[in-house]
Amino acid sequence: MIPQSQSKFVCIECGESYSITERRYRCDCGELLEVIHDLSSISSDVWRHQVDEKRGEVAFRRYLDILMPSLESDAVITLNEGDTPLYDVSEEFASDLGIELLLKHEGMNPTLSFKDRGMVAGVSWAKNLGCEHVICASTGDTSASMAAYAACAGGMKGIVLLPKGKISQEQLVQPISYGALTIGLETDFDGCMKLVQELTAKHAIYLLNSMNSVRIEGQKAIGIETLHQLNWKVPDWFVIPVGNAGNISALGKGLRELKKLGIIDHLPRLAGVQTASASPLYKSYRKGFTALVPQVADATKASAIRIGNPVSFKKAVRELKYFEGVIEMVTETELMNWKARIERVGIAICPNSAVAVAGVKKLVDSGIISEGEKVVVLLTAHGSKFSSSTMGYHDNAENRYANQPVYLPAELAAIEKVLKL
Amino acid sequence: MIPQSQSKFVCIECGESYSITERRYRCDCGELLEVIHDLSSISSDVWRHQVDEKRGEVAFRRYLDILMPSLESDAVITLNEGDTPLYDVSEEFASDLGIELLLKHEGMNPTLSFKDRGMVAGVSWAKNLGCEHVICASTGDTSASMAAYAACAGGMKGIVLLPKGKISQEQLVQPISYGALTIGLETDFDGCMKLVQELTAKHAIYLLNSMNSVRIEGQKAIGIETLHQLNWKVPDWFVIPVGNAGNISALGKGLRELKKLGIIDHLPRLAGVQTASASPLYKSYRKGFTALVPQVADATKASAIRIGNPVSFKKAVRELKYFEGVIEMVTETELMNWKARIERVGIAICPNSAVAVAGVKKLVDSGIISEGEKVVVLLTAHGSKFSSSTMGYHDNAENRYANQPVYLPAELAAIEKVLKL
Repeated sequence: MIPQSQSKFVCIECGESYSITERRYRCDCGELLEVIHDLSSISSDVWRHQVDEKRGEVAFRRYLDILMPSLESDAVITLNEGDTPLYDVSEEFASDLGIELLLKHEGMNPTLSFKDRGMVAGVSWAKNLGCEHVICASTGDTSASMAAYAACAGGMKGIVLLPKGKISQEQLVQPISYGALTIGLETDFDGCMKLVQELTAKHAIYLLNSMNSVRIEGQKAIGIETLHQLNWKVPDWFVIPVGNAGNISALGKGLRELKKLGIIDHLPRLAGVQTASASPLYKSYRKGFTALVPQVADATKASAIRIGNPVSFKKAVRELKYFEGVIEMVTETELMNWKARIERVGIAICPNSAVAVAGVKKLVDSGIISEGEKVVVLLTAHGSKFSSSTMGYHDNAENRYANQPVYLPAELAAIEKVLKL
Repeated sequence: MIPQSQSKFVCIECGESYSITERRYRCDCGELLEVIHDLSSISSDVWRHQVDEKRGEVAFRRYLDILMPSLESDAVITLNEGDTPLYDVSEEFASDLGIELLLKHEGMNPTLSFKDRGMVAGVSWAKNLGCEHVICASTGDTSASMAAYAACAGGMKGIVLLPKGKISQEQLVQPISYGALTIGLETDFDGCMKLVQELTAKHAIYLLNSMNSVRIEGQKAIGIETLHQLNWKVPDWFVIPVGNAGNISALGKGLRELKKLGIIDHLPRLAGVQTASASPLYKSYRKGFTALVPQVADATKASAIRIGNPVSFKKAVRELKYFEGVIEMVTETELMNWKARIERVGIAICPNSAVAVAGVKKLVDSGIISEGEKVVVLLTAHGSKFSSSTMGYHDNAENRYANQPVYLPAELAAIEKVLKL
């Protein structure tokens, strides 16, 4: 039996701590919590050897003693998430960027987004706590992932609250097909989120929106696995799209812990990238990390990061300061052009992932990322979930990398002419 | 330098052989070719140890000396395909099926279908032959995969021929986004295929439709990798959806070779499953494998196997006879119900994959698959490529496993009532 006292919730503001076995998402002072583990028994050399030996296990189990040591390995509810590709595309973009560019494709997870990394932790922990219901308010990748893991858990009911009439069939189908109870409410997203909090305060229903700090522990695996793939050689930069700021917080926390344990010998720098339509963190950064000024986020193709009031703002700022981090901002044109360019080397990505790559270009141009530096970009979802925005781009010949179909009579000569044969 | 004489094309009918370095897809007698390698240098114990040591490499490189020994490892153009999950869902379906049920999810490949297994071989070989153009006629997964690998190859142009106005935007967007020259022709699919053959006969353009036997060599990896995951313990059955019959041919060829080399000690049985809408192989099987009678395939949700005149019919029959194989047939209702059921355990699958699972149920019911037997089902693509057929199923409350959204006022009590809290 693992002593669950090995982990606790600690308030990021006042430092108050709570038992990890509470169903708790915020400190009594109202601030976010984070999970702090006692990692003192980990020896870096032994640990590195152990995780090499565990290459055949799923990532969350392989790194469990850093991610969630209070959970038994047998209690992990997994869909085989992780071990995603780390593509080296340095050569393909050498003339534009002049850097070592690696793309960590989190779209290659079971529900095709990085959310699975957090849900393996969140749903496993829900089951460990004996919760039979898990809930989230989300219109996209989060609800898909939560529903899939709840389905996998067996005997656990996923509940998804959505604003009625405000989401597309394409978004709706995922929680439905995974068997979640999908409830459309006559309200907006904030109204759904408010009810999620009321329900989880009153009943033994486990909240799996990103304010749940256990999910962050699971997401740490993305950075840890990337370092493992790089044989613990630290790149110069990690670059990541930023919406609610949970993923950059998880990345930072995981890397800090690796450094503290001596598993890596120095820290990379972090860069977060937002769109012009939703850039509260960018605005704060430009003024030296002033307090968050929530905004109403405008429409953007990067719909998953259309967030004007990021829940994990404070955690993200803390990590950015610790890692000499920067925040960049890109336009719709920049992000859609870079989406097209990355897909032209055979890697299908979501618009949110493209935000990060477009940000790399700007950071190179402004000299913040230097020539020859090694840069890892976290891609957050697979392109196949976003076929309509992709088609919209290619349909318009004015877009720089638009690839339009050619229509011809069914004659050999006509095709030969087009192919210049 | 690897001697390319280690592999040759051999006609499956007359036995005539040709150099592997020819751009050749059929024997002069008109029949299909297969690739035969000299595997005599492989020792089973050494090989099993070697592939264990190569777990960090991509699957196609790991098994290269059985898949395509005439190709240098450095010449492999990979998008990190393979190492797909093998889900054990025996417990979830124990009361229905009473068997050990394993699902090999080939939808977890880079372009979300098993086609990537063949394309890594086909496109790598095209590059090895010096071809700068690759071509196929396909409206679905094949064109997506070919386009992605051609994009990855660098300096290689993918060309996709499609019947104009007969395919959906969802299908069209994949080759377009990967940068293929996508040509819509005023003809039907057969007209496109005819032009593909004319173009590749006349010019140095490499044909990557399934009549290309090099692709089959790549697809052998699915079965080999599954056996490796099972530590070379042979299951009782492999079950697989059958359309053009290339995948079942590849599976059989790979398993036969493993047995011949002593890497596995006996053979599993094979079961192919077709839909009632397109069942020429089933009809032949029922009469003791009589000659193929091509049919006009009716519409089916399993669109990828809507094929009335399967190219690899003869290869498939040969494998089925060798493996004491059977062919089953399922209805639209059966396949869509099983799609829903598999998704309810957290695994999103395409309708074609569901055909195979529905077939397992029928084979269990008829006693062909016995209680307690271990059955591996090959899932061929990810569910996220098929959101409209999934939504169509759940939209109709009369469907047995339909999961319809619930619409409520934004009030705590209303939700509590639905949740029976």
